[in-house]
Amino acid sequence: MGPPEPNAIPFRPKGKLPVFEEELEGWKGYIEWEKYPEKKKQVEEILKQYDFPDPPEFQLEPLPKTNPILTGERFKQYHYATGLRYIVDTSWQYVLKEKAEDMIHVLQFPYNGEPPGDRLVSTEITRNEDFFVRNHGGVPEIDPDKYFLEIEGLVNNPKRLTLAELQNEELFPRQTKVVSLQCSGTRRLEQIRQYPGDGDELINAPWGEGAIGTARWTGVSLKKVIKYCGGLKDGAMHVEFFGADTYFKKGKVYNYVVSVPWRKVKVHEVLLAWEMNGKPLPKIHGFPLRAVVFGYIGARSCKWLYKIRGIKDPSEAPVQRKEYLYYTPQIGKQNAMYSNGFSIQDMPVSSAIISPKDMDVITHDGKIKLRGWAFSGGGHWPVRVEVSPDGGSIWYEVPTENISTKYFHAWRLWEIDLPLDPEGWLEFCVRTWDNAMNTQPTFVRSAWNWDLHVTSSCHRIKVYSVNRSKPATAARLKALEEHGLSITPITKPLEIELETDEQYHASMKEQHGRDPLE
Amino acid sequence: MGPPEPNAIPFRPKGKLPVFEEELEGWKGYIEWEKYPEKKKQVEEILKQYDFPDPPEFQLEPLPKTNPILTGERFKQYHYATGLRYIVDTSWQYVLKEKAEDMIHVLQFPYNGEPPGDRLVSTEITRNEDFFVRNHGGVPEIDPDKYFLEIEGLVNNPKRLTLAELQNEELFPRQTKVVSLQCSGTRRLEQIRQYPGDGDELINAPWGEGAIGTARWTGVSLKKVIKYCGGLKDGAMHVEFFGADTYFKKGKVYNYVVSVPWRKVKVHEVLLAWEMNGKPLPKIHGFPLRAVVFGYIGARSCKWLYKIRGIKDPSEAPVQRKEYLYYTPQIGKQNAMYSNGFSIQDMPVSSAIISPKDMDVITHDGKIKLRGWAFSGGGHWPVRVEVSPDGGSIWYEVPTENISTKYFHAWRLWEIDLPLDPEGWLEFCVRTWDNAMNTQPTFVRSAWNWDLHVTSSCHRIKVYSVNRSKPATAARLKALEEHGLSITPITKPLEIELETDEQYHASMKEQHGRDPLE
Repeated sequence: MGPPEPNAIPFRPKGKLPVFEEELEGWKGYIEWEKYPEKKKQVEEILKQYDFPDPPEFQLEPLPKTNPILTGERFKQYHYATGLRYIVDTSWQYVLKEKAEDMIHVLQFPYNGEPPGDRLVSTEITRNEDFFVRNHGGVPEIDPDKYFLEIEGLVNNPKRLTLAELQNEELFPRQTKVVSLQCSGTRRLEQIRQYPGDGDELINAPWGEGAIGTARWTGVSLKKVIKYCGGLKDGAMHVEFFGADTYFKKGKVYNYVVSVPWRKVKVHEVLLAWEMNGKPLPKIHGFPLRAVVFGYIGARSCKWLYKIRGIKDPSEAPVQRKEYLYYTPQIGKQNAMYSNGFSIQDMPVSSAIISPKDMDVITHDGKIKLRGWAFSGGGHWPVRVEVSPDGGSIWYEVPTENISTKYFHAWRLWEIDLPLDPEGWLEFCVRTWDNAMNTQPTFVRSAWNWDLHVTSSCHRIKVYSVNRSKPATAARLKALEEHGLSITPITKPLEIELETDEQYHASMKEQHGRDPLE
Repeated sequence: MGPPEPNAIPFRPKGKLPVFEEELEGWKGYIEWEKYPEKKKQVEEILKQYDFPDPPEFQLEPLPKTNPILTGERFKQYHYATGLRYIVDTSWQYVLKEKAEDMIHVLQFPYNGEPPGDRLVSTEITRNEDFFVRNHGGVPEIDPDKYFLEIEGLVNNPKRLTLAELQNEELFPRQTKVVSLQCSGTRRLEQIRQYPGDGDELINAPWGEGAIGTARWTGVSLKKVIKYCGGLKDGAMHVEFFGADTYFKKGKVYNYVVSVPWRKVKVHEVLLAWEMNGKPLPKIHGFPLRAVVFGYIGARSCKWLYKIRGIKDPSEAPVQRKEYLYYTPQIGKQNAMYSNGFSIQDMPVSSAIISPKDMDVITHDGKIKLRGWAFSGGGHWPVRVEVSPDGGSIWYEVPTENISTKYFHAWRLWEIDLPLDPEGWLEFCVRTWDNAMNTQPTFVRSAWNWDLHVTSSCHRIKVYSVNRSKPATAARLKALEEHGLSITPITKPLEIELETDEQYHASMKEQHGRDPLE
């Protein structure tokens, strides 16, 4: 039982659906595509026969008020046409089983979801069921006893390692690290609302501020594993990760494949993890083994990792070469190529106000509490958080004692009691400085890009301030209370008179009326 | 037959509905309230029995894609409860009869409508059926032979004048003048979208750029009529206009009453008009007689004018005293009074880009055409129009030969071929300077006010620029054409590859790959 599917589009098979068996016993939902060009070709021919439904035009219209917000009909139908309907179905079952009941289902399939804001910043370490999920395909179900990891390519001694071997502390010392993972789509909604974009075939999940989370990951440093395989061969500068999920791009099928540079592995910033916060990885987070690449875009932390290859150049696989590109603002559908965007790896400094929420009406006595997160990837950490009550002219520093633990590779949570005199609509924003003095671009416009990645501009919210310490406001609030009325919704007309005739005429007299004297 | 009523709410009468007969033979739909306090009291008691439906929360949500956009259930029900359902019905019939078929029905009742943008700026003089309508109640149906105008109050010789007398050129010289009327709600949508507001009981019609129009009005200068009545008495500084429409405010009923200062009448800037562009006034525009107050907010140009009173101070009637107030930004539901906003009379300098439209995708060869209107009320006229392709840093002057006729009291239409190199999302804006060197506030935020009046900030639109004179863009457009595909919708994923493998690898070689050398 899941939520309703508001925009499900019927699928009509063309002829008999193909059957692609699982490649390996105990690896349900894993189809090996990369080794079998003929199978990939077969799928390409099948997909050509269909007119798949267009992704919904949500970028030019308001988002539906449904949960899931988007259902991902097009991606579902790629799977249906390829005989993989069961993966769509079982994947949704894992959402219901492993994730909190009130997750915001940004995209039902492939599953993309984030936790409600309140819980997002309630603990430094994110609970597993609250941790955002950004999947690119379905959830494979792999029997840990049947699982093995292949290390191959430009490696001196290619090996196949079981989970038990990886977990054998006599072979590999165990590493546990607090690391934040962030999707480059975090806060994409802000870009979408101002300037829609993206010529990519994938649906751009309309993420809010919750596509980030922090966990205590346990596993083994990839460097140790590569050393165990005799190290990389000369000229090998990157390692490629293969995930067991099935991925579609422009009418072709793949496994999920990405790469990271060797220099990242060398400094022990790539972990092969089997535990998340002291528990086995949830299925939806990559069980039994995933990569965790510190400070990088989440997309490199490959889930359901079944193969690692030493390679010379960055991966040519579509997720690495054709996705997660960052374009200059004059690039768009009319001129975008893969080579004129740069590849997003390290995540920049960024932050968000989680409470209050955009468009909140806040009744206060001259001070209000703001809470949020701050993060910097790529080997930096937040050292200063500043908030502004006026859109970015006046800044208040968040007291350092109000910012949570410094980790090399994790976010910091913060809160501040902001002095607030003015009333009416205000624009609050936050910016963070990291230890390399990087800070955030000022406006969404300052850093807009066609694929709507990395919304790291100062996070802005509008709030309506009602300051009870002002006599006129205190009087109005009292009058409302006496009439059993509320100040909210703010746009609901006041049912009581604004002033008495006496007050009006006294005020007019004081102002010498509405008109000039002569 | 009208468009469907998407959010009609059933009305359940409490007991027998009252019957308020028309006061005068041949004055259908006109109930005289102002002379009869006991009738007003009766309505007040009736209205108290009802819980009327709240105005829709459209300011906090996207507007419905219906025409009418809003139906005005609450205002309709005020009329139903007062036994005036027929006025609601006949008023809509006049919309269908007198207005263009494709009017944008911003509010069905009281009727508020504006023409589509293309026609708005197609002629200097707006066609009667395209002229915006901002009514506050229903449309009275007055027999011109039974019509008379009362002149009373602080006038030396109070009189009652028939339409024939007013039109008698031996008594009054006829005046014909090109005058723009503008609702202070024009472009309100821009304020609503950024910062919802308004504690007023009326629904804030979400106007676009079309609540302005220009007509050639014919009638008699009010000054001549007052002189004919022996002039105003000493101490009379204002004249009050009574309209035959029924108006509700905070549970009470009124006729529509406003005032203008005598100084405005004195310089012949108040016309009592019976012709609009050489034709009798349409019923919906005030037949048989209305005021036309040059350069003032449209609200003062009282329709279905049946009485004029000389008075000392501005009118105490709710439309004058309690509506059309302009507040400082810290005033809102928590502290707004009638005396702490100023009364909107003269309209400031303002302008709008009508073509292209917000969010348009424009394929061009380095130049695009912009068209719009420019206006300044209060005795000024536009002398310069400037447009910016970058949100307000670089400005291009519209060549003076591309701006239409200068009138003392009317808008000017303009167009410009704007040189345009950059691609992607751009923010265009326009500002106008009037002959007193007044220009427009920069941003909506700069001049936001609680009642969402007078959106005169630089009008901004977002356009997506596709410049065919750029080789990469020309190549992409050609490729799209060859595949029978279109560049729009801009957010629809490209179905073709962005570049060949060869192009990608050549480019990577040129860039020395994605990573640093060492």
